[in-house]
Amino acid sequence: MGAKKNLITMEHGAGGDSMQSLIADTILKNITNNKAGTVGLDSLDDGATVRISDGVEIVITTDSHVIKPIFFPDSDIGRLSVSGTINDLVVMGAKPIALTCSIILPEGFEIEMLEKIIKSMNEAALEVGVSIVTGDTKTIEKNGLDSLIINTTGIGVAKNIIRDCSLKVGDKIIVTGTLGDHGTSLLIHREGFKFDTELTSDVSPLWNLMADVLKIYTDDGKSVVSAMKDPTRGGLASTLNEMAQKSDVGVLLIEKLIPLKFSVRSACEMLGLDPLEIANEGKIVMGVKHEYAEQVIDLLKSHKYGVDAAIIGEVTKENRKKVVIKTEVGGMRYLSVPEGDPIPRVC
Amino acid sequence: MGAKKNLITMEHGAGGDSMQSLIADTILKNITNNKAGTVGLDSLDDGATVRISDGVEIVITTDSHVIKPIFFPDSDIGRLSVSGTINDLVVMGAKPIALTCSIILPEGFEIEMLEKIIKSMNEAALEVGVSIVTGDTKTIEKNGLDSLIINTTGIGVAKNIIRDCSLKVGDKIIVTGTLGDHGTSLLIHREGFKFDTELTSDVSPLWNLMADVLKIYTDDGKSVVSAMKDPTRGGLASTLNEMAQKSDVGVLLIEKLIPLKFSVRSACEMLGLDPLEIANEGKIVMGVKHEYAEQVIDLLKSHKYGVDAAIIGEVTKENRKKVVIKTEVGGMRYLSVPEGDPIPRVC
Repeated sequence: MGAKKNLITMEHGAGGDSMQSLIADTILKNITNNKAGTVGLDSLDDGATVRISDGVEIVITTDSHVIKPIFFPDSDIGRLSVSGTINDLVVMGAKPIALTCSIILPEGFEIEMLEKIIKSMNEAALEVGVSIVTGDTKTIEKNGLDSLIINTTGIGVAKNIIRDCSLKVGDKIIVTGTLGDHGTSLLIHREGFKFDTELTSDVSPLWNLMADVLKIYTDDGKSVVSAMKDPTRGGLASTLNEMAQKSDVGVLLIEKLIPLKFSVRSACEMLGLDPLEIANEGKIVMGVKHEYAEQVIDLLKSHKYGVDAAIIGEVTKENRKKVVIKTEVGGMRYLSVPEGDPIPRVC
Repeated sequence: MGAKKNLITMEHGAGGDSMQSLIADTILKNITNNKAGTVGLDSLDDGATVRISDGVEIVITTDSHVIKPIFFPDSDIGRLSVSGTINDLVVMGAKPIALTCSIILPEGFEIEMLEKIIKSMNEAALEVGVSIVTGDTKTIEKNGLDSLIINTTGIGVAKNIIRDCSLKVGDKIIVTGTLGDHGTSLLIHREGFKFDTELTSDVSPLWNLMADVLKIYTDDGKSVVSAMKDPTRGGLASTLNEMAQKSDVGVLLIEKLIPLKFSVRSACEMLGLDPLEIANEGKIVMGVKHEYAEQVIDLLKSHKYGVDAAIIGEVTKENRKKVVIKTEVGGMRYLSVPEGDPIPRVC
């Protein structure tokens, strides 16, 4: 009788608890040299920092994009991969400067489609002045891979590195816009639901949105943004719980302040989904020193990707490592980490 | 009648002409911002450079590893991915300092196998003192992907960037060891051929081998290595042709000087393959100023990965953009770029 083998399940890539365990027990435990700067692999942040020379530390982040469908309302995997990598740099406080692009193509893929995707990558990169400097192309037999995969790795530079583990009690929680747009629009598009909606994905590179915010400093020269993350896999629920846990604080959200498009709210209601668990690709969640919160909101709202920015709650001493929502009817509920793979897989 | 669609074939990933055309016509043409330092995407070198601040330029390279089998004699995809990325930095003259690691797992993959692969990655990284600083984990449904894929992106620093396009007439061509070991051993293993051979893959991280060589400078402060590349996809044939073409010089090789293991030579003869077209994962080809060639060979031979290092030819004014071999029987033949996908696909 052989021992039962542990196998990878889809949950291991879903951004929740299963993925965290896999990363901690199988990957992190076995990589003994995991730091080359202040932030290493053990931080499990959106990226890491690498010390280049005295006083020079860069930010680096990597992501493989395996989404289906690869074309979706108003956008595609090209724009998504570039935007996602740029945003992972931005949430660490870094100005993105260069990207690498590695493409894996299944045999039989249409070259015209590839060209369309490359053009989208270029457009997103140009939007924030980032260069795509090196790449790699591989092919896989038709029966070995059913869609193209893009890996993008990004490099940026930061005056102040911003972490996801440094929320401070009293900070205001800000989101840069409506939540759930990306995941919901992909789901509607992919499953062919006939909602009467013009909902499109929010996928966008957010450096220009955040550049001015990152120039606001407190009197002691620190960024007014205490902590930042982009709510992709697992949505706001995953992201804020991770930030609260790592920062050892509580988060109190006011449900009625959370910006949701009517179409997202109604689609999620009909499909039995929580929009706060759904992936975003053009949004940022941050903790901001409370006395600067209105100034940050004004700056965000002046940019096309931030018009729906809102203060949605605050960081508390109570409910440590938890996220609590004050509901519209006045009750309180925990916003938990999505377990396993309950969310429609869209990224 | 619809227009005929151009589709991706396996040749597009084989490292030969088809791949070069795809990269030039579909990718490079559509990426308008392709430089952030001296060496950009348009150089189609093993990596690029990114200017970080005044006087600080780093080297960056990326590779997605899609090999089958993922375990092979004495090694696996983990050691291969880390070594491959390290070697791409080394051939640009850079000391590797940090790697990212993005893993795509098919549903059903054994976690124990993943752990073995991660341990191999760690071992290869430790060998040259490189840190693995950030990563990403994705899963794909069982019917969408049939094996795991690893992307590694590396960052290094170089005093002198070494290019693949700067061979100089008179340079000696040096290889750091026997050719064709990796591809031949994989092929024998994968196809289950019953050769009486202990042949194993040569996959190795080559920073320690090259570190001292990169400290030898000419009187005017330049590296004695004029140009360098690792002969992976398409083997020595692809690599030297690319270097000759980009450098606008000829290369003359002396067949009897090319180090080949007896087992590789005989396996290739039986299988009708040219060992010079077969992939290596632990070898470097370089052009070295002729007066320093013996010194470089001595240094290489003193290291375990360089015991079979040899001068195999020289750079000539004649036969521009071509590689010519003087055969053992005294004839001359062109060593051409492998066309399409004739080589057993092993990487």
